[in-house]
Amino acid sequence: MILNGKDLSARVKDELKGKIDSFVTKPVLAVIMIGDNEASKIYIETKKKACQYVGISFMTFYYDEKEKEETIINKIEELNNEKIVSGIIVQLPLPKKFNEKNIINAISPSKDVDGLTEISQGKMLSGKSDFIPCTPKGIIKILDFYNIDITSKHIVIIGRSNLVGKPLLLECLKRNATVTICHSKTKDLEKYTKQADILVSATGKKHIIDKNMIKEGATLIDVGITRENNKIYGDINPNAYEKASTYSPVPGGVGPMTVVMLLENVYEAYKKQGGITDEIFG
Amino acid sequence: MILNGKDLSARVKDELKGKIDSFVTKPVLAVIMIGDNEASKIYIETKKKACQYVGISFMTFYYDEKEKEETIINKIEELNNEKIVSGIIVQLPLPKKFNEKNIINAISPSKDVDGLTEISQGKMLSGKSDFIPCTPKGIIKILDFYNIDITSKHIVIIGRSNLVGKPLLLECLKRNATVTICHSKTKDLEKYTKQADILVSATGKKHIIDKNMIKEGATLIDVGITRENNKIYGDINPNAYEKASTYSPVPGGVGPMTVVMLLENVYEAYKKQGGITDEIFG
Repeated sequence: MILNGKDLSARVKDELKGKIDSFVTKPVLAVIMIGDNEASKIYIETKKKACQYVGISFMTFYYDEKEKEETIINKIEELNNEKIVSGIIVQLPLPKKFNEKNIINAISPSKDVDGLTEISQGKMLSGKSDFIPCTPKGIIKILDFYNIDITSKHIVIIGRSNLVGKPLLLECLKRNATVTICHSKTKDLEKYTKQADILVSATGKKHIIDKNMIKEGATLIDVGITRENNKIYGDINPNAYEKASTYSPVPGGVGPMTVVMLLENVYEAYKKQGGITDEIFG
Repeated sequence: MILNGKDLSARVKDELKGKIDSFVTKPVLAVIMIGDNEASKIYIETKKKACQYVGISFMTFYYDEKEKEETIINKIEELNNEKIVSGIIVQLPLPKKFNEKNIINAISPSKDVDGLTEISQGKMLSGKSDFIPCTPKGIIKILDFYNIDITSKHIVIIGRSNLVGKPLLLECLKRNATVTICHSKTKDLEKYTKQADILVSATGKKHIIDKNMIKEGATLIDVGITRENNKIYGDINPNAYEKASTYSPVPGGVGPMTVVMLLENVYEAYKKQGGITDEIFG
């Protein structure tokens, strides 16, 4: 069975649209972009389209990479205090001269819909996060939707990044899974992957997992993306799909969920800030 | 071989004492205690003695459990601004009426020597912590002192608490270990413990690990404490010691290290705050 993130994301998007349609005042997402990284521009366009579809207003603030850090931090503080703004994100990566930490941490935790400020991450560590980062949130949503119970399951995660591996690990622990985390320094990776009831790979190395490395009947979640000659490949070789009970492929799996989880976080921020009272006028 | 935390802690304490002896202005630890939990009083006495031994000044602020939360938070803010105070800790647990999170988060991250504020925890998640919580820090110190390299080793941690399991997991990941985290909802615990190159147990359940559950030649780190008829027992049955290559027992292992790591964090806070310049007068 395919865990179809593309279909699920369309469904979640329509549900959100239905809720937001009834609001008089719409949620607002503010995006800060510095420099002219081409990939970042494409990601912002994707987010913009998704926001427009569900009825979230989208504001973009572009800065030249010559801009002073202080100007950007001042803008973030202004947006923190701006009541109509529900969520704020900074498009990463930033040009090297900027201190990413200082800029991200300027975002008010109540508007930190990417879940990347130190306070949000600290809350996540203690299991009390307001906003789960979008990729791990999308993975949990897929598992939930397809009724894959993770309690007491052995989940093996490959990748220990702050954006995917670590927050996913914490979410899985919170949901009572037993979790192993592997990475580039893991020896004998196969030893671990073969044990996984649920295997999540987030390395960005094309097809590093193949059918000989998985357990019969496992659930596979592919989070890796490798671009080669205009084609997209995942971490998991499709030859493993047949041996798995279920799998979330690349493309069409976790990727489309990530953007929609950002919309969900903006919607949740809006509700927490009191905007939901608008519904009575809907 | 015994990983002797008792001896090592005495050694680290003497090293710290040697450094602090030369300071004109001494580091200061401020402790907030609310209510009259007997165990807490004993812990505070232990910390006080250790501080006095190395030359850290010790201030205690006792509050009745009828005290207003606001008064305590104001006191913490006063201590944050007090230049001579290097570190601040709140003795846990607090009486139920208090919001632990609000009180802990009032501590300035630069003085948070227990590493428990949300900002400290967020920094830890991203691998950039100023202060590692004392128990995991003590475990890492023991492993380092006895030259047990954890790179690419399989570390199995039993227990997912915010004080021990999760911060230890992050420290081990940072040091390139492959880590599995087990807990009360783990099924077939033995399957995991038998794989461990290094097994850390922090459950507080007497002797839940015995010789049949470990790998020949493993390193065992016992963090559990069970008190029964005035005797102290660990999580690991001593019958496992013979099969292990090295082990840190209970009592006499991680416990004594924990208090000394608090001293080390206070010393580090003092240095970071600029107090180290005193050394020139030493």
